[in-house]
Amino acid sequence: MSERAFQDYYPDNLSCCYGCGRLNEYGLRIKSYWDGEEGVCVYLPKSYHIAVPGFVYGGLIASLIDCHCTGMAAAASYKAERRDMDTDPPLRFMTASLHVDYLLPTPLGVPLDVRARVKEITGRKVVVAASLSADGKLRARGEVVAVRMPNHLVPE
Amino acid sequence: MSERAFQDYYPDNLSCCYGCGRLNEYGLRIKSYWDGEEGVCVYLPKSYHIAVPGFVYGGLIASLIDCHCTGMAAAASYKAERRDMDTDPPLRFMTASLHVDYLLPTPLGVPLDVRARVKEITGRKVVVAASLSADGKLRARGEVVAVRMPNHLVPE
Repeated sequence: MSERAFQDYYPDNLSCCYGCGRLNEYGLRIKSYWDGEEGVCVYLPKSYHIAVPGFVYGGLIASLIDCHCTGMAAAASYKAERRDMDTDPPLRFMTASLHVDYLLPTPLGVPLDVRARVKEITGRKVVVAASLSADGKLRARGEVVAVRMPNHLVPE
Repeated sequence: MSERAFQDYYPDNLSCCYGCGRLNEYGLRIKSYWDGEEGVCVYLPKSYHIAVPGFVYGGLIASLIDCHCTGMAAAASYKAERRDMDTDPPLRFMTASLHVDYLLPTPLGVPLDVRARVKEITGRKVVVAASLSADGKLRARGEVVAVRMPNHLVPE
């Protein structure tokens, strides 16, 4: 796996996101890394990320897939341009659509393994497929359509 | 609007959910009410539910749509059986799939108005469509396929 997380390359003014911003002290602060052609993110839910006793809240699963896939969209776009993630111009992505299929209940108390793979890069759009496993079993599948962030949304 | 929220009818052993459990002190504790044929949930995000400065985190939007729609599935199922929500046997729902289209950025600092409408009730499955508006504009659309919770997941 790569040593520096995708999110560690985000500039400070784009690092406040509740899901993936390293500067959001209340947030999830997920970290995504290359693992071959895939992006991988391991996250251990807090005890309060619960749906029913013993199982993880589905909204957390959606959030993990969302932020991991937009990170993957950015990392893959830099890679497609044969550039490091800290080079200009910056490539920033936001979510156009998110889909999650919950296949099996996800046990609480074990690390969640979220994996992402790029399905398609077309112009400003990247489609990313994700899987989420726990205890060695596939628990959810997701797909994110990520689009380049328009300049008017990028903070100064 | 009805006076008692859908979630206030959930039994204690199903009220720990991070999104909608009234007993989860760290959670969102959303409240959903009937408003004619629709279910409505108004939620004011915290300042840390941020994506980029000024805008709401998409994972929160997904979470609100998820829990509001499963609440709607339960409420509509009781209604279809012409029963109050505190009568037996209890009808409990979980999410089979979640889809969100993010149409416009959602401003942070104003209440979010989430509305849900049942598209289909078939056996143990309820399909619920949702919209999320802020400042009078539609910001996101969602769809949840909710299914009756199998008995082995219902805590004692």
